[in-house]
Amino acid sequence: MENRKLKICIIGSGNVATHLSMALSEKCDILQIFSHKIANARQLANKISPTCAATDSAKELADADVYIISVKDDAIKSFLGNVPNSKKEALWVHTSGSIAREVFDKSFKQNGVLYPLQTFSKDVNLKMNEISFFIEGSDINTTNKIHDLANFISQHVYYANSELRKEIHIAAVFACNFTNFMYTISSEILERHDIPFSVLIPLINETTRKITVTSPFLSQTGPARRSDKKIIANHLAMLNGDNKAIYELLSNAIIEKYKQ
Amino acid sequence: MENRKLKICIIGSGNVATHLSMALSEKCDILQIFSHKIANARQLANKISPTCAATDSAKELADADVYIISVKDDAIKSFLGNVPNSKKEALWVHTSGSIAREVFDKSFKQNGVLYPLQTFSKDVNLKMNEISFFIEGSDINTTNKIHDLANFISQHVYYANSELRKEIHIAAVFACNFTNFMYTISSEILERHDIPFSVLIPLINETTRKITVTSPFLSQTGPARRSDKKIIANHLAMLNGDNKAIYELLSNAIIEKYKQ
Repeated sequence: MENRKLKICIIGSGNVATHLSMALSEKCDILQIFSHKIANARQLANKISPTCAATDSAKELADADVYIISVKDDAIKSFLGNVPNSKKEALWVHTSGSIAREVFDKSFKQNGVLYPLQTFSKDVNLKMNEISFFIEGSDINTTNKIHDLANFISQHVYYANSELRKEIHIAAVFACNFTNFMYTISSEILERHDIPFSVLIPLINETTRKITVTSPFLSQTGPARRSDKKIIANHLAMLNGDNKAIYELLSNAIIEKYKQ
Repeated sequence: MENRKLKICIIGSGNVATHLSMALSEKCDILQIFSHKIANARQLANKISPTCAATDSAKELADADVYIISVKDDAIKSFLGNVPNSKKEALWVHTSGSIAREVFDKSFKQNGVLYPLQTFSKDVNLKMNEISFFIEGSDINTTNKIHDLANFISQHVYYANSELRKEIHIAAVFACNFTNFMYTISSEILERHDIPFSVLIPLINETTRKITVTSPFLSQTGPARRSDKKIIANHLAMLNGDNKAIYELLSNAIIEKYKQ
């Protein structure tokens, strides 16, 4: 790319849009934020720089080198339908783990995906340079441009086509969303007995520390790992509903895995 | 307790026995390690101090103030059957999350439980003073003694009867064992595509960081949290066997939980 700052428009004002635009603003020129809610667009634009504009109309999109779409999965396709033809020569990327690159039709000459493997909350200062980005482009030149774009934020950039990106998203659902739900179940069990969830934090920290020095497979402990069917039956008798079904399914799956 | 160092015998030489005896040896006199495998007993005894003895015979147990049993759940009862009557006046505790205090019959005058809420691996230097201990004693005097004993290691000591201790153990199974299994599933999905598990570490760290500043319930993200049935169906079509069943059950449980 040329020796001037890259001009970028951000479509979206949610958590991903916020973190990406903040991180990119250090090295690129974030021209404009689009959001269907103009107040949200303005709020994020103000965060970025005094010159960053805001709009709620696809027709008013600024002339940029790159357009990054970070809206809800369902909203990507309908937004793209409103993009003026004059903007379709630029590089267009979306940031979704689960939407195929083919959501861009052929009128978008250079298109691709920039998927950050992270869970984003508003108002949290993430170490963006530790995040892995999975990228895909409509041709080699486009892929290289997206690689450069990701490199503005992190050195951990991997190529992944839409199929592989979906697999990675599934892995992230297990590692992040489902583990979080395990924490919810355990916190509810403790709270029912007036025990603060904080008693579990050293255990949780040690569990995640272990997997980084060995592997999750080798780190497995607990009644199911020992095939301790007496304890498992004992625990099942104390559970009901979804928690019981989850305990049973996961314990059987662990027993099965370590039989092999 | 008196102003001299407390004399302790440790029954067991596994991970829990090792960490507890090392931590207690700073303030107590660890007289002896018992293990059915004398080599294991000697190895741990040598770690503790030059004067710490080793035995593989219940008849040769030293005269101690406290006996701490950290053996496999199934082995507690049979070991207790071999304890000489002369040792039964002392304080006896086991460290299991799932075995009731009543595993001690009435011939053990002072008995109880000292359950550390942590996952122990050999050769890991844990911050033992951060661990929560859940204790129970056969009478108030005994409970107080066990409280003092736990306080040698950590200030986080809670009273829990056997029923509550089981609930806490179940919470720990969800928060530690089952989350670890989620990591195993995600690592296997990634490895199948030659992607290192390390790409997930920032995501995992952020997931566990979030729950400490807000709550697991409020931290939940992902397709199921958004009731995004299209993505869920899409993911399910890419999974099979236990992983598919787990994805489906957990997604439905999350959808159900956030409907309420």
